[in-house]
Amino acid sequence: MLTVPGTFGPVKKLINSAGTVVADALAGMAAAHPGLTVDVEHKVILRSGDRTPGKVGLVSGGGSGHEPLHGGFVGYGMLDAACPGEVFTSPVPDQVLLATRAVNDGAGVLYVVKNYTGDVLNFQLAAELADDEDIEVASVLVNDDVAVEDSLYTAGRRGVGATVFVEKIAGALAEEGADLAAVAAVGREVNERSRSFGVALSSCVTPASGQPTFELGEEEVELGIGIHGEPGRRRGPMRPARELAEVALDAVGADIRLDGDLLVMVNGMGGTPLLELYVVFNEVAAAIAARGGRIARNLVGNYITSLEMRGFSVTVCGLSGELARLWDAPVDTPALRWGR
Amino acid sequence: MLTVPGTFGPVKKLINSAGTVVADALAGMAAAHPGLTVDVEHKVILRSGDRTPGKVGLVSGGGSGHEPLHGGFVGYGMLDAACPGEVFTSPVPDQVLLATRAVNDGAGVLYVVKNYTGDVLNFQLAAELADDEDIEVASVLVNDDVAVEDSLYTAGRRGVGATVFVEKIAGALAEEGADLAAVAAVGREVNERSRSFGVALSSCVTPASGQPTFELGEEEVELGIGIHGEPGRRRGPMRPARELAEVALDAVGADIRLDGDLLVMVNGMGGTPLLELYVVFNEVAAAIAARGGRIARNLVGNYITSLEMRGFSVTVCGLSGELARLWDAPVDTPALRWGR
Repeated sequence: MLTVPGTFGPVKKLINSAGTVVADALAGMAAAHPGLTVDVEHKVILRSGDRTPGKVGLVSGGGSGHEPLHGGFVGYGMLDAACPGEVFTSPVPDQVLLATRAVNDGAGVLYVVKNYTGDVLNFQLAAELADDEDIEVASVLVNDDVAVEDSLYTAGRRGVGATVFVEKIAGALAEEGADLAAVAAVGREVNERSRSFGVALSSCVTPASGQPTFELGEEEVELGIGIHGEPGRRRGPMRPARELAEVALDAVGADIRLDGDLLVMVNGMGGTPLLELYVVFNEVAAAIAARGGRIARNLVGNYITSLEMRGFSVTVCGLSGELARLWDAPVDTPALRWGR
Repeated sequence: MLTVPGTFGPVKKLINSAGTVVADALAGMAAAHPGLTVDVEHKVILRSGDRTPGKVGLVSGGGSGHEPLHGGFVGYGMLDAACPGEVFTSPVPDQVLLATRAVNDGAGVLYVVKNYTGDVLNFQLAAELADDEDIEVASVLVNDDVAVEDSLYTAGRRGVGATVFVEKIAGALAEEGADLAAVAAVGREVNERSRSFGVALSSCVTPASGQPTFELGEEEVELGIGIHGEPGRRRGPMRPARELAEVALDAVGADIRLDGDLLVMVNGMGGTPLLELYVVFNEVAAAIAARGGRIARNLVGNYITSLEMRGFSVTVCGLSGELARLWDAPVDTPALRWGR
């Protein structure tokens, strides 16, 4: 029951049951991180302890299976709350409303929403419920994936890696006491300056289905993969890391300028060895240098995953001095921590 | 050439070639982390910038494929140098000697060596070469894996997750200016207080072979797996996370006491979704509580990996007040960072 047939790497899961995986993982997060307060029943992850008085609250959320996004980014200088849905399933409006109430301190609440139809709808409904309670809410819609328009689950571009940048930079500005309009504006600016492209070497398998979400041939890759295994632009033959990095940078560079100072993330999808991510980062750095850019800040690792998918995504954000300053500001969360 | 046949999850690698994977990854580490100085040709990773004058130097190393171990732990409060070998291959004595010279500031150098025959031999040869140059060297041999005695590549117990604890705690004491004997002693104490046990759900695949290191049945797990895919105690049927955690804690608890304050790591092996690691951590916490213990400090994530292997390992260390203090001391490395 926990496995499906497969010649190599049968799809076993370290879970107790498909129905309890999210609750069990949330209980694990609560046990691991004293800096988080986790309402397992209602699936809300909050910062423990004192928050800066009168601060704008930041709430994000989305389907589980992308860890550390979003719960791993709750803490000083980033999110105040995260609302995880079931695996690859949007959180519900009441859940978001609970988080909104908990983090509102009179200065209003910013929602960081990845562009998937269910997420957009449910955060919108939550905002309306919050409005009924006189809580001011603004939203940043993240839609940085250049791969496709109007994909499965999405009208327009999908929201992927830039979510990490938006949460970090908007969170830093909120921590400094900026008002809701300013925090929302910097979040939107980061999104507009950011683009991503992903490449899958293998599928992921949701606990509920126990089956690969898609099938790839032995020598195939999916170029432009979505974080739930949605189709990308096309399939192509497996190629050396250097060529895959070029494909990704060509796609990103068609949408935004790659010269100047850049914030770059090379993100694993949950199943990629860190050794390989550094190989990819090296090629991404070379590809960006060849296009006149400079990687001024970077992340290399698993930040927005798709369960055990193998592959990588690249997210690039054109930095201003102010955005670099906010990126460098102290952050103290389970998955991102520096400078405090 | 980059793939092998497989019905699910063909074994593609994000590399340029099997022969350049380590050098390419080291170049990527150098590009990503300004805090590191990387000699790609000689495969030595050093701390950039000023080191505390007169400090004992800490050097570790071993085969690549276990990232972030060891290069990701180079930095303030932890290692001064790491020597990565080829994938799953020991570093050579000359490489270790180069690192030893670079980090020696007159107070001597501590080697942290995982118990594999090649590593032990080559670090011993390096120590002899260093002695010829009047550099004082001491070693801590890490052998925390309770699974088996005298396994493939190893006489006695293998060295696994406790390496992370030894490097962190000995590194903290060295940063405080303790002498070589004291730094070595605390490293040995951590090793003696620590035990580990790993469970594999799938094999890993080295770039050079392109083939799974071992084969597991669709509903089988390897109980007591080694970090290079060496055989464990036995194979068993896939079971819920709760039961696998019990197996691991029973094995660890047969060797060390589990009551009292503990430092616990639930480690992914490179291919395990973080969602599942939190499920496992929750079960480990329950199993330890049932045995009268308290998890006072913890890590959940990928810290000592086996390429894309899926599974988990648990490492437990009985804490004293002094060890907890050194664990909490500031650290600033690519993979472990807090408090500075």
